[in-house]
Amino acid sequence: MQNLESLALRYDGSKLQILDQQALPQNEVWLDGTKPEDMEKYIKSLQVRGAPMISVAAVLSLADFYSKGATEAEFRGWAQKLRDSRPTAVNLMHAIDYLTDGKADPDEVKRRAIEVFEKDVELCRKIAENGNTIIEKEDQILTHCNTGGLATAGVGTALGIIRKAHEDGKDIHVWVDETRPLLQGGRLTAWEMLKLGIPSTLITDSMAAMLMAQGRITKCIVGADRIAANGDFANKIGTYGLAVLCYYHRIPFYVAAPATTIDLSTKTGQDIPIEQRNPDEVRSTWAPKEAQVYNPAFDSTPAEFVTGWILDTGVYNHEDIKKGALKCGQ
Amino acid sequence: MQNLESLALRYDGSKLQILDQQALPQNEVWLDGTKPEDMEKYIKSLQVRGAPMISVAAVLSLADFYSKGATEAEFRGWAQKLRDSRPTAVNLMHAIDYLTDGKADPDEVKRRAIEVFEKDVELCRKIAENGNTIIEKEDQILTHCNTGGLATAGVGTALGIIRKAHEDGKDIHVWVDETRPLLQGGRLTAWEMLKLGIPSTLITDSMAAMLMAQGRITKCIVGADRIAANGDFANKIGTYGLAVLCYYHRIPFYVAAPATTIDLSTKTGQDIPIEQRNPDEVRSTWAPKEAQVYNPAFDSTPAEFVTGWILDTGVYNHEDIKKGALKCGQ
Repeated sequence: MQNLESLALRYDGSKLQILDQQALPQNEVWLDGTKPEDMEKYIKSLQVRGAPMISVAAVLSLADFYSKGATEAEFRGWAQKLRDSRPTAVNLMHAIDYLTDGKADPDEVKRRAIEVFEKDVELCRKIAENGNTIIEKEDQILTHCNTGGLATAGVGTALGIIRKAHEDGKDIHVWVDETRPLLQGGRLTAWEMLKLGIPSTLITDSMAAMLMAQGRITKCIVGADRIAANGDFANKIGTYGLAVLCYYHRIPFYVAAPATTIDLSTKTGQDIPIEQRNPDEVRSTWAPKEAQVYNPAFDSTPAEFVTGWILDTGVYNHEDIKKGALKCGQ
Repeated sequence: MQNLESLALRYDGSKLQILDQQALPQNEVWLDGTKPEDMEKYIKSLQVRGAPMISVAAVLSLADFYSKGATEAEFRGWAQKLRDSRPTAVNLMHAIDYLTDGKADPDEVKRRAIEVFEKDVELCRKIAENGNTIIEKEDQILTHCNTGGLATAGVGTALGIIRKAHEDGKDIHVWVDETRPLLQGGRLTAWEMLKLGIPSTLITDSMAAMLMAQGRITKCIVGADRIAANGDFANKIGTYGLAVLCYYHRIPFYVAAPATTIDLSTKTGQDIPIEQRNPDEVRSTWAPKEAQVYNPAFDSTPAEFVTGWILDTGVYNHEDIKKGALKCGQ
């Protein structure tokens, strides 16, 4: 097989490495994620993260494990553990269901895992192309969390669109929410923007509203960890607040995601389970250790706040969604 | 004279100490702020902070300096430097104008400085009493930044109300915004709530909207650094976003401040100068050093979002404001 390589993942057919996303941008550390038990740890700690990327990393680790002599029971046991490692993003569940479907032998499992990787690259490319059609010259684009090359096997979702528009010479500017508590914007998106040479400005999450009032944001584009059947979606905590603020300030608000993010068995955003994480992520090094903390990793944004859904299959509005444009892809 | 003592300031008539608010809550470090040149440094670095507190600390330092033999020119020179040390909060400007008014001798200046301290204690007490009238049993109160005993010479403004309601047995719960970038909520308010035994939960600034959607916030109370003649006000960055979110979710939104915060010469919030601070406050230890940053310390909230203005003179609504309830006090 050909080596698989993305910004944050490398697989040579026997060794799987992931770029430690908790060490970035200070240090570029590659971790060995060949064993499912290590990969599970990396996913839980967000050393590998991004809804599409965790699905790609998980299936490659599982396939490699199975191909090196694990029993089917061991393979299926670890598949279940990895499937349960994070409860909100649905891409991981879809990818593992595809991997473990039927009586697949190790070779077939490996073929499927590689297909998941390659398909994600292609989905990103299509999202970027579709999304680029809604970007105007000199757009000032607000984004949240990290949805780029680190979060997917390809160019990314929301950031893939931004990259495409930049390469297309649209002279855009990106406002990067730092995205507390784990700072995926301040650490990862700011780093990717510099690496790609895309003009950007880093802000704390609390500054977005002021920029909107000043007329300095013309569009907001975010990713998604799960899109429900009615178009509601879960994404990194803070997304819902941005959606309401965009609505009030009449700023178009888009969600960009591959079809693997759609979960038609989840009726509305209210039905998406929201992962609660360790309070120390919020306390960090500065807050009192005794402080009680609330730390949901995601929030749910109702479809009513969304101007358009940018998928690999096209850009959809409310009418399209009502007519069934959301089709789940594995 | 009697010693002056508050949670974050001590003056024995010759030595002025301030509690280093950048070292809290890990370390309780008292700094010598007797000399105006040191006090200026502490104010700029936010080691002493809170609109009422910086005015109290600045005038005591100036008065002590003058009383120990500084010439009138030296006294007035340092008065001007301290007056310019932070551009948004107006209490500092009012207090220094009062101190330097007319041909005051050192004894008179010292009397005035002590009066500024004692008056702030009394203003806080009255704000707390007035504000307590709008707090209901089991209110779930969201607050931003730090407006308590560390930010004033007394019990605080928004937090003074919260403290009063708690002591009154109203069984309230406080949601504490961590308040990036300088984390006055996560470091200082969380610490004060624990010290006072007031039930509270720390959140990142981006989590407030989700709590509102869940119906878990019944009121929002914030402080102010300057209130314009029309009721608009400047406060810590992030306040405007909370105001819009409260408006959308129909949650009462109050601003609490002493009359020293009112600036009738500023017509609207648009006219309040907003301090831009060092980009490294946002970059902190994690973001790329090359990242471009926008770092306004405050934002401006239009009066239309305010349910009530809680001052030492009473609680006012829009009608009251239009009839001239905002009267500047020094």
